Amino acid sequence: MTNRLKEDLIETSQFGRMPPKRIESYAQLDSEKGITRPDGTEENKKIRDYAVERMKEAGLEVKVDKIGNIFGGKRGCKTDKGAVMSGSHLDSVMNGGMFDGALGVFAAIEAVRRMNDEGFENERPLEVVAFTGEEGTAFPPALLGSSVLVGKTSIKDGLNRKNPMGQTLEEALENIGYKGSFESSLDNVEYFVETHIEQGPILDREGISIGVVEAIVGLTRIFATILGEENHAGGTPMHGRRDALVAAADIVSFVRKRANEMIDKLGSSTAGTVGKLNTFPSGITTIPGKVEIGIDIRDVVPQNLKNFESEILKAMGDASERYGVDIRTDVQYIHIPVKLADEVINVVDRAASQLGIKKKRMISGAGHDAENMAEKVKAGMIFVPSVNGKSHVPLEWTNWEDIEKGAQVLTQTLKSLSRR
Amino acid sequence: MTNRLKEDLIETSQFGRMPPKRIESYAQLDSEKGITRPDGTEENKKIRDYAVERMKEAGLEVKVDKIGNIFGGKRGCKTDKGAVMSGSHLDSVMNGGMFDGALGVFAAIEAVRRMNDEGFENERPLEVVAFTGEEGTAFPPALLGSSVLVGKTSIKDGLNRKNPMGQTLEEALENIGYKGSFESSLDNVEYFVETHIEQGPILDREGISIGVVEAIVGLTRIFATILGEENHAGGTPMHGRRDALVAAADIVSFVRKRANEMIDKLGSSTAGTVGKLNTFPSGITTIPGKVEIGIDIRDVVPQNLKNFESEILKAMGDASERYGVDIRTDVQYIHIPVKLADEVINVVDRAASQLGIKKKRMISGAGHDAENMAEKVKAGMIFVPSVNGKSHVPLEWTNWEDIEKGAQVLTQTLKSLSRR
Repeated sequence: MTNRLKEDLIETSQFGRMPPKRIESYAQLDSEKGITRPDGTEENKKIRDYAVERMKEAGLEVKVDKIGNIFGGKRGCKTDKGAVMSGSHLDSVMNGGMFDGALGVFAAIEAVRRMNDEGFENERPLEVVAFTGEEGTAFPPALLGSSVLVGKTSIKDGLNRKNPMGQTLEEALENIGYKGSFESSLDNVEYFVETHIEQGPILDREGISIGVVEAIVGLTRIFATILGEENHAGGTPMHGRRDALVAAADIVSFVRKRANEMIDKLGSSTAGTVGKLNTFPSGITTIPGKVEIGIDIRDVVPQNLKNFESEILKAMGDASERYGVDIRTDVQYIHIPVKLADEVINVVDRAASQLGIKKKRMISGAGHDAENMAEKVKAGMIFVPSVNGKSHVPLEWTNWEDIEKGAQVLTQTLKSLSRR
Repeated sequence: MTNRLKEDLIETSQFGRMPPKRIESYAQLDSEKGITRPDGTEENKKIRDYAVERMKEAGLEVKVDKIGNIFGGKRGCKTDKGAVMSGSHLDSVMNGGMFDGALGVFAAIEAVRRMNDEGFENERPLEVVAFTGEEGTAFPPALLGSSVLVGKTSIKDGLNRKNPMGQTLEEALENIGYKGSFESSLDNVEYFVETHIEQGPILDREGISIGVVEAIVGLTRIFATILGEENHAGGTPMHGRRDALVAAADIVSFVRKRANEMIDKLGSSTAGTVGKLNTFPSGITTIPGKVEIGIDIRDVVPQNLKNFESEILKAMGDASERYGVDIRTDVQYIHIPVKLADEVINVVDRAASQLGIKKKRMISGAGHDAENMAEKVKAGMIFVPSVNGKSHVPLEWTNWEDIEKGAQVLTQTLKSLSRR
């Protein structure tokens, strides 16, 4: 039975890889050749078609909504109760991995197949979902399909988004035959469960197969342009320089130091990263006149995130004064921290315990459709390990035993929830 | 009389500027449109031709050596004494300014004209020189013409150097008609004086017209590649990260802090600049896996320079250990510190005093042909102010009053030296 889910993931690992190649083991991965299948591409159509076929084979009734989300429904024997929904997404980042998103969709289909095989009678309806535009690669920002489903983004606004070639999402979906006609809603949905790779190193490092996700961190981005004065490195004495890179270095150091302090003092889940830093003109004999930086800060506690942001802005003010540079900032609130539903967390936790599978309560450091869903229904997430913590790269990998354990815990979770 | 030198600089300010434009005042400068006339270009030929004409008009006997250095000689009445040589270079960086190099050549020609006007009888021979390839723009490394003249670089090696288009210097010089046939030497030269813009802010800031240069700093470059581990900023906990940019930030901060400490404790002339810093992949959600940096360190005291280099390498070792990153370094010794000749320094100083012109003893933070010349003859330099300390950029400027004072001090200096 494992082999069906494994086969789905191996078969779809061809879609978006150049040249197409079925990847069955870590050793077959090529660190250069990953998966690229943003929404609206031929490669995205291939995996959507594949998922629809599997849904139909599993007896699910397939519908596509106006934003291109795919739903596969199975009636429950107690039709007055809200459905249990499970799934993830089929789009990818540029040159990413074969598990991110696809796992959550095919694990949900596999769970339905297993219930079919056992003759399990689900009381609540079951819905498998594959969301459009989770990564935001072609039609940013991210989490589009779930954002429309929960009503945060209008269908019209979503369909009018353009990709870098100027094509609208509506045109892109029509091209691949996934511009559906029905308007989806969560009126008859009570639970949502998303299975996903961890995208971090914790489970892999600790040898644990299942992460029971309690919350998804909030994410704020701070972009800053530091303007100093470009001058000759030889002729300009140290005193009186206005070196943009020296100011930037203080900020890079501060972000790391402060995140670590918060973790030590508050036991928080804080993360702070200066991932982007560009120096101008970046010449060996020139004092940098301009530096652009992009800072990514995350925390599961809203107040921690807010405090961290304020402290970074204050550190920038200090650096501006200390080095005589101008710093222009742009703060973007990408998503607020989201607490998942205790009821679902407990069901997932118990499922793993009953199956004798090692699990760990944890938080998600990355954003997921589940965070949108949590605004309207009781939502939970199941994590499986990412080998070496890698994701969004061609070397993204999860061992097949862990995939199987994830499928078992998801199946057990959906069964439990369907009878509540 | 001022007007002749001013006119030379204004007229030659067209050569290498697109479109050609005679610049007579700071207000006419365009911050985008500077001077580009590396050796071997048509524009380089124009300024060489112009200089040769002026030399001939001044009664100088013009000769071009095998590496393209131009000499304009005037016999002295005491032929048994070594010559007094003065000049600089006519090539430029890409999109640089109109004074760098050209000033030193035309000021020397002007000094000869003034001596002619006065009927001054120079005892020693006078030689005006325009060196090839001082900037190293087309045929690096820099200071080529003087390096050949003092015998550090062979004519053959110099002529075989190639520009980015694959053309040798020999071909380039032949193209513009400046591949001379005689082999120059310093056998009959005793003194060298170079007039140059400061390329730093000190004289301009302090309102002083003349810098009496005592030494030229040594320059060492340290290039480093910092290799950490690229990972997702969300999924990867702070603990266990190997962030190449965090390590780089420590090094940037160290270089500045240590240079300032040396200045405070030793009263040294130390400068340390991380001008180059490139982050990979420089994405907002990715922990930087690689950072390349280039550090420029300068000091006039050889031991200070050596110590500073060792301390930076040690700081890199510390950062490597602290953050679990690999750091690969490449140290390049560009030039050693050079002390100029006390005799010439004193003559320049006295000349300014006699003329009632404000002057200041200082060091040169940039390299010059004078540092090569100092190895074989008694060499000195005269600096004039750079407005806002700018050089190697289109906004490089020196006020005409300061140009005139520079010409007066140079003329007086050459006169004094010629009678020693």
